[in-house]
Order: sequence, then structure tokens, then C-alpha cells
Amino acid sequence: MKQIDKLLSFRESIKVVDATLRDGGLVNDFYFSDEFVKNLYKANIDAGVDYMEMGYRASKKVFDESKFGKWKFCADEHIREIIGENDTDLKIAIMADIGRHDKNDFDEKVNSPVDLVRVAAYIHQLPEAIDMIEDAHKKGYETSCNIMAISNTQENDLKAGLEMLGQTPVDVIYIVDSFGSIYPEEMARVVDLYQEFAVKYGKKLGIHAHNNQQLAFANTIEACGDGVDWLDATYLGMGRGAGNCSMELLLGFLKNPKYNIYPVFKFIEKHMVKLQEEGVVWGYDLQYLITGLLNQHPRTAIQFTKDKRKDYSEYYKDMLI
Amino acid sequence: MKQIDKLLSFRESIKVVDATLRDGGLVNDFYFSDEFVKNLYKANIDAGVDYMEMGYRASKKVFDESKFGKWKFCADEHIREIIGENDTDLKIAIMADIGRHDKNDFDEKVNSPVDLVRVAAYIHQLPEAIDMIEDAHKKGYETSCNIMAISNTQENDLKAGLEMLGQTPVDVIYIVDSFGSIYPEEMARVVDLYQEFAVKYGKKLGIHAHNNQQLAFANTIEACGDGVDWLDATYLGMGRGAGNCSMELLLGFLKNPKYNIYPVFKFIEKHMVKLQEEGVVWGYDLQYLITGLLNQHPRTAIQFTKDKRKDYSEYYKDMLI
Repeated sequence: MKQIDKLLSFRESIKVVDATLRDGGLVNDFYFSDEFVKNLYKANIDAGVDYMEMGYRASKKVFDESKFGKWKFCADEHIREIIGENDTDLKIAIMADIGRHDKNDFDEKVNSPVDLVRVAAYIHQLPEAIDMIEDAHKKGYETSCNIMAISNTQENDLKAGLEMLGQTPVDVIYIVDSFGSIYPEEMARVVDLYQEFAVKYGKKLGIHAHNNQQLAFANTIEACGDGVDWLDATYLGMGRGAGNCSMELLLGFLKNPKYNIYPVFKFIEKHMVKLQEEGVVWGYDLQYLITGLLNQHPRTAIQFTKDKRKDYSEYYKDMLI
Repeated sequence: MKQIDKLLSFRESIKVVDATLRDGGLVNDFYFSDEFVKNLYKANIDAGVDYMEMGYRASKKVFDESKFGKWKFCADEHIREIIGENDTDLKIAIMADIGRHDKNDFDEKVNSPVDLVRVAAYIHQLPEAIDMIEDAHKKGYETSCNIMAISNTQENDLKAGLEMLGQTPVDVIYIVDSFGSIYPEEMARVVDLYQEFAVKYGKKLGIHAHNNQQLAFANTIEACGDGVDWLDATYLGMGRGAGNCSMELLLGFLKNPKYNIYPVFKFIEKHMVKLQEEGVVWGYDLQYLITGLLNQHPRTAIQFTKDKRKDYSEYYKDMLI
């Protein structure tokens, strides 16, 4: 039996990654005010969070800059406007989404406020992801890799992918439950599989969970108890569709005294509640349960939400076809 | 490792108990319309739910009848108005809350539409609970016992209580996470402890979870995977404070083909959404996380909700004193 609860001790190697701007940005097209981002940065510092993901560095050749807030693109200069020289323990991350990025948009680390480049890819995109990881590593960044939608990936393909990733300089390999379809007992087995390769190649593991079945936090602490060190969370669980593991839940759970939940409450009451009042919608709802149960991408559920539909049973029938 | 996910097989001994009227009634003072209750009854039948809890049978000597809906009192005649002769596989349950019940309000089973009497008690009330259990058993009812607030109960007291209960005719002993403070790994250990006595005395085990830390479903399937057979859930998680394990999540998880999630979606879109639109509030929010984390009764968090407060950080500070 794992000893993850009621322990008064803690694991120094755990890293908490705030993904509010990045996964949350998918909800409001990255239109966060500078005040929001500055206060989130301060809250993360006060809360003892280890990494703050500022958003995607999407290619402007792929996305129209006028249709998104700036955290879709995360220019170094925009990051610097928020964090200055960032003379703090909080490290800065951005995400490169394979197929929608351009590695030429990444300067040498020495010129950039970014510490960690997180590379997200579907399994079939791994060769391109590895190219990106190697490039970022050479430029001096820490790197991590999210293999997305693993619940739709054959185990043999996943093993081949982990073998490939193991041989790269990537620092952290992320388990990603993109569709929120994985139960904690299954998560334990997924972690086992990843651990094989992590141990073999000396990599760290991370977990990024979605809340379609109200299991994002449960899966995160399950993985944590199984030895996964890098834990993604977002304030009030803000993230695409059903959202993510909530920062307030995660910091309430973790025992390292460097983590403080109070600044998280402060930030939520000042900024997240306002977002919700302005009509930004995320979080558990039946349409997301349905895509989670059916192990599907939430895109149709997001449309259902946008259309303010409540005819869950009709939607369910449509999804079964 | 438990084999509870991705299994195409199932355990016949599992029983799903719908507690919407009872735990949900704590949110709206049991003012459910007859149409709501009748449709819930039908939905439960169609969904393959095993037991439907109609509410409390509270003593009218303790509670003023004019201040609550009728499901606070669950008179046999009111139940009959909904279910008639109940010529279905769905069994009917009511709850007796020790100290607020009167065993004289329970007729002989042969005269009553009720199948199961669920007795809820704090550990110090167990002698009175046992008196009630024996009385109900003698009258011909199935019986279960909820020992409440076990996260605030010393393990030795709990063991003594389970030993006492084991020697009664009670059919099912419930694990109750009243404050939503238990993590799944801890739940596994609680189940172990209860199993000792369940095996020794030939009792079934049940689980009733609260969602303060978004763990009600996770704890329910954890307990299920550990051998607990009686699983409480409510439609859309409706229940006191942060609410309960959601029926839609639970039926999505269970593999027995007798369970159907579709009628649950139908009922939710027709009735539960309306309740929410009318201003009935339950479900995860930071004030409930706070009482869960601090292992406290949610009563101050419920007041915080009623007052429509959002100053979570002030509330947290007050709770730490």
C-alpha cells in the first residue's frame, strides 16, 4: 500500500507546474489581462509553485495573431514585461505544440526568460517532437515531452515512443490523460509502464490530468503516490473542457512546507471568480463526462457548451453512433 | 494491483443506492415536487439502480413539520403515493438519524413500502443505533448502519464500534466520509479495517462519500475495487455542501449491463438543471475544500455559501484559528 496520505514527511523531488495560462488559455483564447498574469506570477511565487507555464509559443505562420491573446504566442519580450529578470525560485515554461510551432521562434536560452520548453505531440508526431526537443536542449533549455491522447494509443506504439524519447536529452516525460478517460487504477498501470523507461533512461515523469470524470486530482495524487514527480495543476482547475487538476486541491494535499495554499485562495477570489462572472466557462459537466467515458476528444462537448445546450441525453445518443 | 478498470466483467454483488432525495434534501429542505420524486423513481428503475432512499424518517417531535418538505419525514403513505405497490426490482430505503428519530414511527415491514432502514449515527451514539437496528430488524426490515465522521474518530473507538455492530443483525455497514477529508489511499486502509469485521461477522460493506476535495467518485471506486459492494450516489452529485458521488459517474463506471446511464442523463436535463436554475446550490467550492482539508463539519461552509460570500482567503484564516 502506498503511503501518500497522512504522511507528515514529503518528497523533495516533487515539482508543481501551474498550467493556468496555457490550458486555461484554451478556454478564453488566451485573452488574459496583464494584471491577471502579473498577479498569477506573484501568487505562484508566494504559493511555492515550481514552474509557471506562460502559454503556447504557437507559430504566427499557423495562427492569426489578431484572433488570440498574446499568451498563445508567448514572445520573450511579453514574458519579460511580466517577470522582468525573474529573480525568484519560480521557473518559466512555455509549450510548443508539434505541427503548430516553429523552432526558429526559440532563441538561445541565454537570451530568453524561459527555462523549460514543454513539447506536446501525438504519438505519430514523435519524430518531429524529438527534433524540437533536441533543438531546445541544444539552445540550453530544460525540456519535457507530453505524449497526448495515450488512452487512444496502442500499448506497443507507446512503448516504442517511450523507447525513442528515452534516447533523447528530454528531462521529463509526461503522462497525459487528454480525454479524462483514465481511472486511477488504470493510471497506476500507466505509471508502471512509463516508470520502466524512466528508470532505464534516467528520466523524470510528469502527470497532466483532465477532469471529465472528476478524476483529475485523484489521478494526479495516484500518479504522485506511484512516484511521478512533476504535477500539473491550474487555479480552480481552469482548462479546456472539463479542466484540469485544481491547484488548490493539489497544494492542500502536498506536505512540503514550501507550498502555501493561501495565495491560491487570494488569487482565485480576486481573479478567477471574475473570469467566471464574465462568462468564461470550464469544468465538469455531463458532456465532458460523455466524451471521457467514450474516450474521445472533447471538441464536440466544447461546442455543446458554447451552444449552451443542456440536452445531454440527445448528445449522448449522437455520440454513440 | 486491483482490476477494477477496463474489466469487461462485473461483480453481481454490487448494489447502487440513490441517495438524491435524502442527502440532496439537505440542500433544499426536502422540498421536492411529487413530479420530481415520481420521475426520479422511474429513472432509477430504468437505470437499474438497486435502492432508492426516499429521505429521512425524522421525528415530528424533534422537527417542525411546517418547515420541511415531506421527504424529511417519509411517511409510509407518502411513499405509497409515489410508488404504489412498487412491483419493480427497485427497493426502497429511508434513513433514521439517531437522536432525531423515533422508532415508534416505524410500522411492521409487512405494512410498509420500505425495504431497508438505514441508521446513521456518530460513534458515541452506537448503542442507540443498535437499539434501532434491532427494532427495525425485528419488524422485518433490511438494515444498514452509517458510522459518521470516522475521520474524526479514533481507530480504537472505531474498532470497538465495528465489533459491536458485527454482533447485531445489521446487514450492511457503511464507510462514511462525512467531511470529504479522506484521500483514496487512506480509503483503501479504512476499507481494510472494515473488511476485518465484515469478514468476521458476515456483513456487507457500503461507501458514502462527499465531494469536498473532488474525491467522492474516486473514493467510491477505490472502495469498490477493494471489495465494498454497496455504493451510494446522487444525481449530479446533489447533496449537502460539496455533494456526493455522482450517479452519472458511477453508472458510467460500472460494467453490469443492468445499469443504464441514459435515464440518468434524461432525468438530470429535465429536473436537476431546473433545480440549479431555481437557485439550489451544491457541489465543489473552495469553502468545502477548506472544511475537508481541515477535517471539519461543513456547517460553516454551508453558511458561507448561503451568504454568497467569495472571500475564501478570509474564511480560510478564520477556520485556522
